[in-house]
Amino acid sequence: MTYEGYEHLIDLVAQGDEQALTAALAEIPAADVAEYIDQNFEVYSALALLDKMPSEQQAEVFGYLRPNNQEDLASHMEVGVLAQLFRDMSSDERADVYALLDVKLQDAVMRRLAKKEREDLLRLASYEEGTVGSVMTSDYAVIPVSGTVDDALKRLRQSAPEKETIYQTYVVDREHKLLGVVSLRQLITMAPSEKIEDIMTRDVVVLRPEMPQSEAARIISRYDLIAIPVVSDDDVLIGMVTFDDAMDVVEEEDTDTMHKSATVGKLEGGIKDASPFLIYRSRINWLVLLVFANIFSGMGMIYFEDLIATNIALLFFLPLLIASGGNTGAQAATLIVRGMATNDVEKKDWLYMLGKELMVSVGLGVTMAIAISTVAFFRVDPVIIPIVALSMVSIVLVGSIVGILLPFLLKRLGWDPAVASAPLVTTIADAGGVLIYFGIAATFLTMSAPV
Amino acid sequence: MTYEGYEHLIDLVAQGDEQALTAALAEIPAADVAEYIDQNFEVYSALALLDKMPSEQQAEVFGYLRPNNQEDLASHMEVGVLAQLFRDMSSDERADVYALLDVKLQDAVMRRLAKKEREDLLRLASYEEGTVGSVMTSDYAVIPVSGTVDDALKRLRQSAPEKETIYQTYVVDREHKLLGVVSLRQLITMAPSEKIEDIMTRDVVVLRPEMPQSEAARIISRYDLIAIPVVSDDDVLIGMVTFDDAMDVVEEEDTDTMHKSATVGKLEGGIKDASPFLIYRSRINWLVLLVFANIFSGMGMIYFEDLIATNIALLFFLPLLIASGGNTGAQAATLIVRGMATNDVEKKDWLYMLGKELMVSVGLGVTMAIAISTVAFFRVDPVIIPIVALSMVSIVLVGSIVGILLPFLLKRLGWDPAVASAPLVTTIADAGGVLIYFGIAATFLTMSAPV
Repeated sequence: MTYEGYEHLIDLVAQGDEQALTAALAEIPAADVAEYIDQNFEVYSALALLDKMPSEQQAEVFGYLRPNNQEDLASHMEVGVLAQLFRDMSSDERADVYALLDVKLQDAVMRRLAKKEREDLLRLASYEEGTVGSVMTSDYAVIPVSGTVDDALKRLRQSAPEKETIYQTYVVDREHKLLGVVSLRQLITMAPSEKIEDIMTRDVVVLRPEMPQSEAARIISRYDLIAIPVVSDDDVLIGMVTFDDAMDVVEEEDTDTMHKSATVGKLEGGIKDASPFLIYRSRINWLVLLVFANIFSGMGMIYFEDLIATNIALLFFLPLLIASGGNTGAQAATLIVRGMATNDVEKKDWLYMLGKELMVSVGLGVTMAIAISTVAFFRVDPVIIPIVALSMVSIVLVGSIVGILLPFLLKRLGWDPAVASAPLVTTIADAGGVLIYFGIAATFLTMSAPV
Repeated sequence: MTYEGYEHLIDLVAQGDEQALTAALAEIPAADVAEYIDQNFEVYSALALLDKMPSEQQAEVFGYLRPNNQEDLASHMEVGVLAQLFRDMSSDERADVYALLDVKLQDAVMRRLAKKEREDLLRLASYEEGTVGSVMTSDYAVIPVSGTVDDALKRLRQSAPEKETIYQTYVVDREHKLLGVVSLRQLITMAPSEKIEDIMTRDVVVLRPEMPQSEAARIISRYDLIAIPVVSDDDVLIGMVTFDDAMDVVEEEDTDTMHKSATVGKLEGGIKDASPFLIYRSRINWLVLLVFANIFSGMGMIYFEDLIATNIALLFFLPLLIASGGNTGAQAATLIVRGMATNDVEKKDWLYMLGKELMVSVGLGVTMAIAISTVAFFRVDPVIIPIVALSMVSIVLVGSIVGILLPFLLKRLGWDPAVASAPLVTTIADAGGVLIYFGIAATFLTMSAPV
């Protein structure tokens, strides 16, 4: 019974039986049809496939497609067909597609929509990318506060086809101000004669359109809600964010954070579709910045050039020592950054986390020092062993402290702690590592003979 | 109207008005009460606060608490109270808490539960951590295939209080085999006399209990579903995974992936609660492995020791050159690993992604070479500039290729591509960087005078 619409569709298209294909399309989930189109994208065969579906299904499939492909298909459609697609799409997806079109096409589609749709579209399209307004839908269900459970159910039955969900219904007054919320679960378990104002939940968690979308996702996940209403400053209901939009937001935000952890900037629409220039632009700034930051390590090396020239064997341990500091620091920073993102770690925890990390990093440093001492024992003059071991413990300790404190410092400054990425922590730890290693070596070696 | 239960609770507890507190608790969402208890955790005051709530609310709040605190509270409760809590909890949360208790307490609670609850609990607790079985609930709603819409609604009204959701109802035969699904939206919009078997959706996306939980989250997100049924091999309905569980799974999985990106292993329950030893254990393996892997870079240095000794100025550029290769490679690997996790990039895309990366990385390398040449120009003998510039382009290119190909290779080998973490890519790129830089320097400098 497991359903794999995508594979099913591949077989059907390969068989070339148009009738069987049309019949099957009605059964295959829109997400699967969309994946098929995305994975085998070609404008005219995609348009032909869409043409085999009723217009509501076309709109649903279209909403799941990659933005690049939506744009491509829209520009190849007849304007009349595109306008019908717009009418059938959910209001939030419609606004997203609208933003992809060129101005001429935007105008042409707009002229074919009814006044109400036009206003709704312009309003939703006006919110900035990344805000609650940009992901909310206006297809929410409302009931007046004055009616009964029976009235509400009648109304919901009628309006259900156009609504994104009817499991949460918002109770509003005559000015469309939000007064409360009623779930369909409440409505069907209550007596039909009960008054809405007696059963509605009045303390409602709400969003504002200008909030960051990540906040909406966080709240939906925190309270396990199917949908949250969005209200304006004067409490007028203007939209709704649903759990499935929240899941998409979480995916998008986590992608951004993971990219940031490797100093990759904002990249719209995924790596596969992005042009080489867009990818270049998202990566070059930090790379150049880190080139210059690494000059400090170079200066450290040159400061100790006489020591190195007379004790060239020291260079053998340089890469693994400075890498160890960077790796330990990157671990610490990643743990804190993710802990902050999931609300596990807060600003006030910095001292507690630092104290714990000191204990952990001494353990890590000593273990790594023992590991490397066994190598040093076979390889070089024994006098270098204490230098390498002591350097390892010190460098790991410094790397850890940088890794723990940098995210807290960034957060304190009002920056995104995810900027404390592995490459940045590594760069700082590298410079520290060069100074610590050669500093310790210089001290020890002036006390004994050169290696 | 924005609701902030957490702050509200802090004020109330500070005021010490017991009556106001009890009244307010009934209105504050369980997630907020749980956060208050977690953030200000102390066993006896937490128990006192729970005691002010009706038992259903106690169970709901308890389900939101951190595992550490659940364990602590459970071991301080009277067994009778704990058993009542178990009765009121949702079946999936109950199984999670059960797993936290010591054997003696497990037995004591078990003896106080009814046979049906006992069996349900043992069955759910038997699934391995990380599987669909471990996150599914048995509080799903079912209707027989033989009835009408009216029958189904009557049944749902009755059973609603015990069910996690009634928005999806599963249609089963006498052997409890899953035949289809009906949404509450369908039920309330259809005529009461319609037969369930005529309106149910027969092509149902289902899960198996042994699937990884991440798969459940991926499917729920892909199809925008409120819940998915879980069936055994013979299609018998045994559970349900809801969207809110899927959101928790996504958070958990993304945490694991982000940790992996910095070579941190599995860490249960968050960094704040973890003991220093658990943190140490999750980090030490990769750190030691990378220490040994970095020996190759050290060997490269020693191979060129004569060159370095006579051209010590070369060392100035070493850290920034090898870091640049590592940083570029870490960017590339992160983009591919995340692209794979979101199904944007597939195995078959490796050549396409490599081709695109070659274009991007030449651009990155040339830009970085120009940046560093300006520094070299002021700092050193001009003869070193072409060495550094050429090394930069080559090292960045090699780092990028490693970063792109390593995740594909790991996936090919059946490993988790997230193992291609920044530290691993950096280590490989470092060794390559040492050889490339000094190799190019050796070639150039034998053609001209030493620096």
